[in-house]
Amino acid sequence: MGQIKELLQSILSHRTRNFLMNIGVVGLGLIGGSLGLDLRSQGHQVLGFSRRASTCERAIARGVVDDASVDPALLAAAEVVFICTPLAAIVPTVEQLIPYLSPSTVLTDVGSVKAPIVEAITPLWSNFVGGHPMAGKAEIGIEAAQLGLFALKPYVLTPVATTPLQALKTVEKIAIQLQASIYHCCPDEHDRAVSWISHLPVMSSAALIAACMSETDPAVLTLAQQLASSGFRDTSRVGGGNPELGVMMARYNRLELLRSLQHYHHHLEALIEYIEQEDWIALEQQLKSNHLARPQFIQGPTSD
Amino acid sequence: MGQIKELLQSILSHRTRNFLMNIGVVGLGLIGGSLGLDLRSQGHQVLGFSRRASTCERAIARGVVDDASVDPALLAAAEVVFICTPLAAIVPTVEQLIPYLSPSTVLTDVGSVKAPIVEAITPLWSNFVGGHPMAGKAEIGIEAAQLGLFALKPYVLTPVATTPLQALKTVEKIAIQLQASIYHCCPDEHDRAVSWISHLPVMSSAALIAACMSETDPAVLTLAQQLASSGFRDTSRVGGGNPELGVMMARYNRLELLRSLQHYHHHLEALIEYIEQEDWIALEQQLKSNHLARPQFIQGPTSD
Repeated sequence: MGQIKELLQSILSHRTRNFLMNIGVVGLGLIGGSLGLDLRSQGHQVLGFSRRASTCERAIARGVVDDASVDPALLAAAEVVFICTPLAAIVPTVEQLIPYLSPSTVLTDVGSVKAPIVEAITPLWSNFVGGHPMAGKAEIGIEAAQLGLFALKPYVLTPVATTPLQALKTVEKIAIQLQASIYHCCPDEHDRAVSWISHLPVMSSAALIAACMSETDPAVLTLAQQLASSGFRDTSRVGGGNPELGVMMARYNRLELLRSLQHYHHHLEALIEYIEQEDWIALEQQLKSNHLARPQFIQGPTSD
Repeated sequence: MGQIKELLQSILSHRTRNFLMNIGVVGLGLIGGSLGLDLRSQGHQVLGFSRRASTCERAIARGVVDDASVDPALLAAAEVVFICTPLAAIVPTVEQLIPYLSPSTVLTDVGSVKAPIVEAITPLWSNFVGGHPMAGKAEIGIEAAQLGLFALKPYVLTPVATTPLQALKTVEKIAIQLQASIYHCCPDEHDRAVSWISHLPVMSSAALIAACMSETDPAVLTLAQQLASSGFRDTSRVGGGNPELGVMMARYNRLELLRSLQHYHHHLEALIEYIEQEDWIALEQQLKSNHLARPQFIQGPTSD
């Protein structure tokens, strides 16, 4: 047992020795903080940047970074920089950092919408790779950061024709170290796919809560609140989530979201018509198709 | 410790002795079977009735009932009878059983829609109390039956003006023994409340799966299926559930469901308009209202 352990440690440290970098993390919230914890556990040197000195202090105290500063000059030594700010701040942050970066630095982001980000940054920094690690949890901020957040979760990389292969390989190598499942696609495909499975559900779920709250009989509303259980809890979860995040998705992925909402609207009206017309065969057919289709979207250990 | 245990057992057996009944359970699936397990554990004599001899045999073998038969004459000895068939079979089953019941027998059902059931049965059997224990799980059938299924779950009773108080008290007493949380309301209020929190979510969730499946680019559809995670899983769960159950809800609660769907449709169109008009203030306002409203529907240990 001792020999096997030594052998594994030797392989691991060898692999790690061959790929130890100075990595900048900009924006030290849930994603940036969790990234820092994982990268440091791999042996990388992690340099944090935040607008707030108090966040830098917390990041150092929590062991999320090796060093952190409100001064972007700290990032001059970084070989790779992850931009982990909220969506709206990604492009302005890159513009602010550019004067401080070494030209060989690989830049990547973690934004949940890719086309507008990739379009804006590619002309500013050729060594840029758009990315989207699809990990998260209800809590936000550096205190919620955790080791292993990205493990077994999708990490989408969205290179374009001009993306240097070496830059792509570097980011991919780091994502593999996070034990994420790597996907490649173009920015538009990413934005359309996440509109279906992430942004549309927020809006369909939001309309549910809004509709329930429109009940004007207070006795019925109270009863509904008392009787609501797992079905309502699950269906309403993402529509009752972080409002700022919901608005950001809609702003940055507006056209794809509108497209998926129009399809949704059409299918909702079809269901209403089946029920109005008492066309129970058509309704059952749709529900049967759904029952068969859903497992294709549901993988992993927590499926039901 | 031994003395306290003896005292508790004496109190419990005293309470149970004062309220031991012959209870009929008609329909031995998840609900009927779980009810049988709980009632027997309380010391009641449980008499099962099913159309299928094999189900009767399984019920006896699993200890769900003391005796079971395909012959309704077995229920002549029952002081209370729970009708636990699927929604569509409740009224025909009651019609079939009536010739065999003692006139003093209290009849109750567990259907998830109340107004049409209560309207149909009240003229047939005066000692009837509509009921809806809101417990369930994904698995169905007698093999899924479990002890304690109703504990801490809502149990709605829907008496009407003509319901005998003694009948109501009897069913309520049993529901309390199941450790359920008891609610009283009229059948219409029940149907409107469950339309909001149970039947509307099925349809809004069904439209989501149907919309996602309408993506015509196979690369995007595959990517969406690969990237779907907890947000999609939760929002699509009830829309990908049992198709027969979804149709039954719609058939039996058609008018209330259509009413809630119209409200939902209206709120969906408002969200689409905000996004089309880029009215981010209105969108954020709605998402903030949702964020504040949702906790009023979410109680219990599994909330998030």
